[in-house]
Amino acid sequence: MTSRLFKLNNSVSKWPFHKVLVANRGEIAVRIIRTCRVLGLATVAVYSETDAKSLAVQLADQAVCIGPDNVNASYLNIAAIISAAQLTGADAIHPGYGFLSESPEFADACLENGIKLIGPSGDVMRLLGDKEQARMTVAKAGLPVVKGSSTTIDNLADALDQAQEIGYPIMVKASAGGGGKGMRIVNSPKEMAAKFTVAQDEAKAAFGSGQMYLEQYLANPRHIEVQIAADRYGNAIALGERDCTIQARHQKVMEEAPAVVVPARIRDEMLRRSADAVAQLNYEGVGTIEFLYNHDGSYYFMEMNTRIQVEHPITEMITNVDLVELQLRLAAGAELEPQLVVTHGFALECRINAMTPGKITGLHLPGGQGVRVDTAIYQGYVVPNSYDGMIAKIIVYGDRRQRVLQQMQAIIDETVITGIQTNLGLLAQILKEPSFQRLTATVNWLDDLQKQKH
Amino acid sequence: MTSRLFKLNNSVSKWPFHKVLVANRGEIAVRIIRTCRVLGLATVAVYSETDAKSLAVQLADQAVCIGPDNVNASYLNIAAIISAAQLTGADAIHPGYGFLSESPEFADACLENGIKLIGPSGDVMRLLGDKEQARMTVAKAGLPVVKGSSTTIDNLADALDQAQEIGYPIMVKASAGGGGKGMRIVNSPKEMAAKFTVAQDEAKAAFGSGQMYLEQYLANPRHIEVQIAADRYGNAIALGERDCTIQARHQKVMEEAPAVVVPARIRDEMLRRSADAVAQLNYEGVGTIEFLYNHDGSYYFMEMNTRIQVEHPITEMITNVDLVELQLRLAAGAELEPQLVVTHGFALECRINAMTPGKITGLHLPGGQGVRVDTAIYQGYVVPNSYDGMIAKIIVYGDRRQRVLQQMQAIIDETVITGIQTNLGLLAQILKEPSFQRLTATVNWLDDLQKQKH
Repeated sequence: MTSRLFKLNNSVSKWPFHKVLVANRGEIAVRIIRTCRVLGLATVAVYSETDAKSLAVQLADQAVCIGPDNVNASYLNIAAIISAAQLTGADAIHPGYGFLSESPEFADACLENGIKLIGPSGDVMRLLGDKEQARMTVAKAGLPVVKGSSTTIDNLADALDQAQEIGYPIMVKASAGGGGKGMRIVNSPKEMAAKFTVAQDEAKAAFGSGQMYLEQYLANPRHIEVQIAADRYGNAIALGERDCTIQARHQKVMEEAPAVVVPARIRDEMLRRSADAVAQLNYEGVGTIEFLYNHDGSYYFMEMNTRIQVEHPITEMITNVDLVELQLRLAAGAELEPQLVVTHGFALECRINAMTPGKITGLHLPGGQGVRVDTAIYQGYVVPNSYDGMIAKIIVYGDRRQRVLQQMQAIIDETVITGIQTNLGLLAQILKEPSFQRLTATVNWLDDLQKQKH
Repeated sequence: MTSRLFKLNNSVSKWPFHKVLVANRGEIAVRIIRTCRVLGLATVAVYSETDAKSLAVQLADQAVCIGPDNVNASYLNIAAIISAAQLTGADAIHPGYGFLSESPEFADACLENGIKLIGPSGDVMRLLGDKEQARMTVAKAGLPVVKGSSTTIDNLADALDQAQEIGYPIMVKASAGGGGKGMRIVNSPKEMAAKFTVAQDEAKAAFGSGQMYLEQYLANPRHIEVQIAADRYGNAIALGERDCTIQARHQKVMEEAPAVVVPARIRDEMLRRSADAVAQLNYEGVGTIEFLYNHDGSYYFMEMNTRIQVEHPITEMITNVDLVELQLRLAAGAELEPQLVVTHGFALECRINAMTPGKITGLHLPGGQGVRVDTAIYQGYVVPNSYDGMIAKIIVYGDRRQRVLQQMQAIIDETVITGIQTNLGLLAQILKEPSFQRLTATVNWLDDLQKQKH
């Protein structure tokens, strides 16, 4: 990592913690342990009985079993994890992603037990974990949120007035609602006249209330997110953005950086506004601000993730910053030098998912020029049934998007995983799709594509 | 690869060849096949009977057995390789490194059979393969060569005169000599007086001639080499330099790029002069100019390699140029845009050598942030006795040398190869040595170190 990210007099030369417990499993546990090893920090792996032979257990300096296969009894078991830290003398915990990584209760428990959690405080997690509060907070801090009606509405005339202000298309929603009841997409005043009362009647029947509200509707957005980092002194920086539009049922499948679909002027503004907003939040550590991005260049805050992201490697490739190291340094009290982080080249990540559990009987993963593989699997490894099926991330880095896409096609074709079913075939298919190649896909594209094929 | 390396109107959009035979084995064969796959070029692997299960054979579109275990009967068998190309319709051959990669006879045979060899012509190989001719040629083209006496010398007075011009230390050599006979290192006029006649007497006794000559002696040089590329139109560029000082018995063990030991002004001059010299040579393809580098900033041409180098990945990491792709494009007639290629960051390569043949029973290779592995081995692979023992290259790329060194230490510690003996222990030891870390080692350092320990 470039020392230029930090004020020199505040870069951490002595760590305030010395042993990091990794409260996670799979590739991210291995990823975190590797950076700790580079930095000379001791590591503790925790594992469920199922994961006794995991790569993380083999790589960590120490390993503690925290419970059975069941996630609630192990990777979500705050008491067991705190106790493993105390048992091994771990004075810091890295939560990875998922599991307890965004749990304010876990953050509080670490604080109470004098263990440094690598991430923001429980209070900041609570604030940003509540969608409505988060929207209000970031709106106040200067980020655009989806436009909505200023009050609830109970008649068509008011609906037409407010819709005019917001601009079509509009999503009509029941104030008391949920589950799609009382919801309509409305594209014009004429459609509003036709649909508002129907939606209101549906809302009354379903929730006993005809109070409605209007929200700007993004028909075909892309998912663009900004990687940020903040120190405890109120400095924040943005480390480029990622385009994570290719999703299957809201799960990201492929991610790329930078987001070449966003014009430079808008991109720079997104990055600057994101860093400025985070600087106002008492935030510490790295995080991601997710936006919906419209083809007209407008973008709207969706949510903020207060942890390392699965797709963080593509940002590491284009910034040459080790984000796990950055997390550790910020947790240790390093002071950021506010700046525009320069990115180079282009990176694409494919998530390899196991579709079935089982033993990996044959394994050939790619390597060589431009290729990075983050994984915890090996030949003979048994993929358990109990956890997320993401077993490897293949990242290609290069000078230009077109070249990276070609290389990823070759690399996915080269990859061999036998003994289990994987999504390698789907990935190969997506890479050949014009909508993917030409960046015309939206967040709904892959679901629509798969519906068509079935 | 950046298209900016090429004049846009001359970048190759249609390949003049379509099927590339890879006349090599091991990791470099895999490396070449991978880039061909990205570029949409078909591939043919050739293999000895020993290599029938090699990764290259598995990855190539076609594979042809060219002979038994014996290298002369297979990988050095020009007739068998040309015949394999004809059999499969391969219209280009990539020779990799070693084997036939610098054989003018092989280059001639390809030309005669209408097959495009990826590399310079047989005539250029002949010229640069003859050490004395190469020295004279590059000296004429403007590269510094080691200073020597202008004539042979047969008396002390002339020796003192000429030594004064060359500068001490001086190597006194027998003109007719070899094998160390009649050779003396001389540090001052006083030592010359004491040693010249003794050396001359020794030469007379050994070779029947007292004709001597003097050469500038580099006591403790580093090995610095410049990566160049040239097109058939007389344009040449330098793609940064590499420091390959860490050698065991003249075999490189670790290489780094850029050569941070060389001051920027001298470095820029080396690169510019190298490119200028190559532009005068009718050279086509990539190549490497090797220099001995003195602590006083002086440097002297040693030799030029007319092929891809084992350590080419570190240059790829800091330039983001795929050098095998560059070879293929130059062979296809692309025209270079003369320019200064900018480098980013720092890369270190460790060569993993098998010290014993045998079956690899357990294998864990590193991965993740900043790590590149080039290898053709896999779990269950049998390392044959017949070939060079280099079985993998581990490359770490990062922002700063110090960080890369720390990561390489962690990565070498993480690597597990069981069933055979390897040099992993030696690599771990070198990484901890102050002479390596502080760049004070010379080309003799590792041999001296190993002598001390035995």
